[in-house]
Amino acid sequence: MERLQYTLNHIEDISADAINHVKATFNTFAIPAGSLGRLEDLAIVYAAAKGGLTLKIQHKTVFTMAGDHGVAAEGVSAFPQQVTVQMVKNFLEGGAAVNVLARHIGAKVIVVDCGVAADVKTLMPPNQCESRVLKIKKVGLGTKNIAVGPAMSRSDAIQSVEAGIEALEEEIQEGLDIIGTGDMGIANTTPSSAILAVLGKVDVDTATGRGTGLNEESLQKKIQVIKKAINVNKPNPHDPIDVLAKVGGYEIGGIAGLCLGAARHRIPVVLDGFISTAGAMIANALEPRVNQYLIASHVSAERGHKLMLKHLGKTPLLDLHMRLGEGTGAILGISLVEAAVKLLYEMATFHDAGVSRPCGA
Amino acid sequence: MERLQYTLNHIEDISADAINHVKATFNTFAIPAGSLGRLEDLAIVYAAAKGGLTLKIQHKTVFTMAGDHGVAAEGVSAFPQQVTVQMVKNFLEGGAAVNVLARHIGAKVIVVDCGVAADVKTLMPPNQCESRVLKIKKVGLGTKNIAVGPAMSRSDAIQSVEAGIEALEEEIQEGLDIIGTGDMGIANTTPSSAILAVLGKVDVDTATGRGTGLNEESLQKKIQVIKKAINVNKPNPHDPIDVLAKVGGYEIGGIAGLCLGAARHRIPVVLDGFISTAGAMIANALEPRVNQYLIASHVSAERGHKLMLKHLGKTPLLDLHMRLGEGTGAILGISLVEAAVKLLYEMATFHDAGVSRPCGA
Repeated sequence: MERLQYTLNHIEDISADAINHVKATFNTFAIPAGSLGRLEDLAIVYAAAKGGLTLKIQHKTVFTMAGDHGVAAEGVSAFPQQVTVQMVKNFLEGGAAVNVLARHIGAKVIVVDCGVAADVKTLMPPNQCESRVLKIKKVGLGTKNIAVGPAMSRSDAIQSVEAGIEALEEEIQEGLDIIGTGDMGIANTTPSSAILAVLGKVDVDTATGRGTGLNEESLQKKIQVIKKAINVNKPNPHDPIDVLAKVGGYEIGGIAGLCLGAARHRIPVVLDGFISTAGAMIANALEPRVNQYLIASHVSAERGHKLMLKHLGKTPLLDLHMRLGEGTGAILGISLVEAAVKLLYEMATFHDAGVSRPCGA
Repeated sequence: MERLQYTLNHIEDISADAINHVKATFNTFAIPAGSLGRLEDLAIVYAAAKGGLTLKIQHKTVFTMAGDHGVAAEGVSAFPQQVTVQMVKNFLEGGAAVNVLARHIGAKVIVVDCGVAADVKTLMPPNQCESRVLKIKKVGLGTKNIAVGPAMSRSDAIQSVEAGIEALEEEIQEGLDIIGTGDMGIANTTPSSAILAVLGKVDVDTATGRGTGLNEESLQKKIQVIKKAINVNKPNPHDPIDVLAKVGGYEIGGIAGLCLGAARHRIPVVLDGFISTAGAMIANALEPRVNQYLIASHVSAERGHKLMLKHLGKTPLLDLHMRLGEGTGAILGISLVEAAVKLLYEMATFHDAGVSRPCGA
């Protein structure tokens, strides 16, 4: 709890001075005012999070947080539970979508075992690659089934958030200019929908979607499971740790920790989709200042994600009907932030370029 | 006319076999079916345009087509006409937004003088850079004022389209896997709105926006100028070359030529914003098959762009409120297509990754 409390107490507002400085800088560029649209906003958020204009983006890292869910036993996912550990292996071997996209933008992938229901230590291929790292921060071997009781104890919930903070802080010495969040965990849209329902005060029917591809019958069953989980556990919407413990997941806590740790160290966070935003909702409920550091990469095809983004007051950068998780959307978002920051540093001003200003300016 | 007619006659449909092949390939990947959303669609369009699966993206090129407009004399732009040539200089020196973004994704910028109202040959810096090239395909020293007569002769309109085809074809030997379109030309939202009004059968009031930043009074004046241009010239909506000649522009013809030339050589085209899409409308009216090769990168903040995209049946990849032109949006779109194509080539299948298939599959 100490690490979490310390982190919460040390999250500062982003820099108003930097916001003004970046706005003024864009106004000197040889372009019509405002014509770069949201790219300008992204450069502003990045610089204001960092607290200055001096830092370029060199180190981009996506954290793919993995965990298993006891509720998978209720048949809420189209895939069997062992896919979580199989995909962790795939991430470490570099064959997953998140790896391909990370290579595309030159980002590092850190896979964090927050609570996979198997020993993953043996999965790391012998030729460990600098751009793919495994961290073990296991809180448990999968959560318990939320349809019959809490996912985890309160202390495990805190530990899962601290696992995310630790994973982030260990990486700072390697260099971290911007991070993306990601997830892997069979059945994890179920706890994420439950978190949306409780913290976002949304009907379970509206908060629940088809995840990896449920048919109508299975979707209705999933809705009943989530309603039952909320009725059985009665999570307190004013106590985000209680919500995480009762209807959350280890990797969701880990994502909340990533967001908080990054904000505490003034590192901008690009959120992936539905599960990542559930983690961000937990973080935001713990300390609303974290919100200033969050950038929504995309809106997922998973029903309910747009309601999460609305709850956080975020407009996504992309709407490509993706619903894979892993950090895939976050990576595309990081590339847009990087483009924006390069514009801030590399563009010629009206003066440099010898370009006439608009009539009357 | 020969080159144009030959090009129009040699544009083929994209490959249905490749579409099926790519769909089948995505179904072998260790992901829930369809979970990559529009990234899968982009890989499909790319491969189907190329006609096969064998080509990776190595050479990315954005063509920034430049031209001046006699109608600038009517005060339809917030910027003076000399900004066109000043910006051409900025592009060649590498300080413009299009250059920064092109470096971000590793693309080449080719600036094509389709009809700038100045001699631009002397602008090329002595240390010419491989990633920034100037091509002179000048049809004239700026178009004539469309408020009082046609922008150009019919033969000049054909020449401007052929200039785009030539610029494209000259570059094929250097390597061209995918292209982006771009534009520079003070006042060029005016002819673009006129083209939308005529070819898209849209009210001039609806087709006309604020361009680089007109106030309400100037916007109303611009609307009147466009109405006058259409009344005076009476462009024939069933004759796209007539529309281009009477209310178009040299760089708009050049963009139409790029689209046609690229389609004829089975190269996918990522469209930039309002002016690029006006060029694409001309190309599409000349030969509707070209449409299959076009990808809309973003929807511009310029009013009317969404109507152009609707006319072409395209859904943009990005909505970042950009309205700069140059090819800036196209570059961001190319990066997404490249990400999609890498997924197609680099992802592990269920079998390779040892990942269990969904229940029932």
